[in-house]
Amino acid sequence: MNDIQFPLQGVRGLEVCLTPALLPLYNVEDFIVVIIDIFRATSSICYGIENGAEAIIPVSEVEECAAYREKGLNYLLAAERNGEVVAGFDFGNSPFAYTPEKVAGKTVVLTTTNGTHALHLSRKAKKIVIGSFLNLTALCTWLKTQNENILLVCAGWKNNFNLEDTLFAGAVVEQLKSGNYKLDDPALAANDLFQLGKDDIGLYLQKTSHGERLKKLGIEKDIAFCLQVDLTTALPILNGEKLVKL
Amino acid sequence: MNDIQFPLQGVRGLEVCLTPALLPLYNVEDFIVVIIDIFRATSSICYGIENGAEAIIPVSEVEECAAYREKGLNYLLAAERNGEVVAGFDFGNSPFAYTPEKVAGKTVVLTTTNGTHALHLSRKAKKIVIGSFLNLTALCTWLKTQNENILLVCAGWKNNFNLEDTLFAGAVVEQLKSGNYKLDDPALAANDLFQLGKDDIGLYLQKTSHGERLKKLGIEKDIAFCLQVDLTTALPILNGEKLVKL
Repeated sequence: MNDIQFPLQGVRGLEVCLTPALLPLYNVEDFIVVIIDIFRATSSICYGIENGAEAIIPVSEVEECAAYREKGLNYLLAAERNGEVVAGFDFGNSPFAYTPEKVAGKTVVLTTTNGTHALHLSRKAKKIVIGSFLNLTALCTWLKTQNENILLVCAGWKNNFNLEDTLFAGAVVEQLKSGNYKLDDPALAANDLFQLGKDDIGLYLQKTSHGERLKKLGIEKDIAFCLQVDLTTALPILNGEKLVKL
Repeated sequence: MNDIQFPLQGVRGLEVCLTPALLPLYNVEDFIVVIIDIFRATSSICYGIENGAEAIIPVSEVEECAAYREKGLNYLLAAERNGEVVAGFDFGNSPFAYTPEKVAGKTVVLTTTNGTHALHLSRKAKKIVIGSFLNLTALCTWLKTQNENILLVCAGWKNNFNLEDTLFAGAVVEQLKSGNYKLDDPALAANDLFQLGKDDIGLYLQKTSHGERLKKLGIEKDIAFCLQVDLTTALPILNGEKLVKL
């Protein structure tokens, strides 16, 4: 039955890159890449694109973000440090800022270290799309129609493994694995971890060090928001420097 | 009750480095490092030291190994390519070669790409010891007496994540976690994967790509051997260039 969804092709790779530091081990040009930075960059991007943002431009540094101020009022600048909106910026990295009232028709310049890093290293991929629990099924439905190898790139934390991004990669594997894919070891592990956590992802992630760190920043509400499954249907895709709606 | 085992110290780190490619993210000088290369280098090393090898010297290249031939008959040279003993060498990488009859009183020069790589990158650690399922409890018993942070380094496969080394790291975490350790995300994930696989590690690992590759090499017997828990009690430790019995 599942083969009906995959009429075109033989076996494709479904692989997971656990941190951007491991990206040099992959020929990204052979893959469609999905960038994953659950807390909170890719969740905010999915929500913003869903809510009508014309484009979202991810940058690494606050200064790089600030430089867009001169380009006019159609740009909204998002930057925070230690959980606070940086003075002079429009908002921080909370997905709650990306409401239709605020972002519709605008271009948001988003400061995100881990996510931007992963994105730059994936630049030669066939296509780059953005994944989060918010658009999980929309993402997977689209991936199933693509006759390409898939690489799920976890942005991680300071170039190392984190549980939340890996768990999401496992959720994508869960939706795709009945298709004709060959999974690598990280994909198998991510899917197994998802099995352990899926009944209550928030509870499962409470034990992580990163979760503790985020709690200290007072963003528990953001975390709960980012773990909502299928709140959105838009699929952000990279077009030049900008993430836009596919 | 568990605190009785750890009378000396406050919280120590118990961390897992999932591949040697991630070692630059750690200050290895702050840790006791455990090198893990289950199929088959660290298993063979544990078995060889248990069986009376005076020392084991891990090297990366067959040529480097061959150079020890000139040093005399007390050196046994182990090297294989594609599952076959390289011509002119004493044996390959199968743990079955490391019997008391063969290795007692000898120094074995072992060619192992992934394991040697992990070892070289960990050189500045406080101490470097060797772990495998064969010496699991002996390793953990010793680690509990050490008032130091612990870093479990998975040799992985071609610098990337593999399930068997990670599962073993999770087994070590399982024995230590009741102590006063702070686990990082990779340690939490490794331990969760171990929970999933522990009832039948061989069965669990059958799904991995590496497992398939090893099967093709006709070394199923080696795999089963390497998954035996607590067959040995010796703990190999790095002393200069040589692994010796602690």
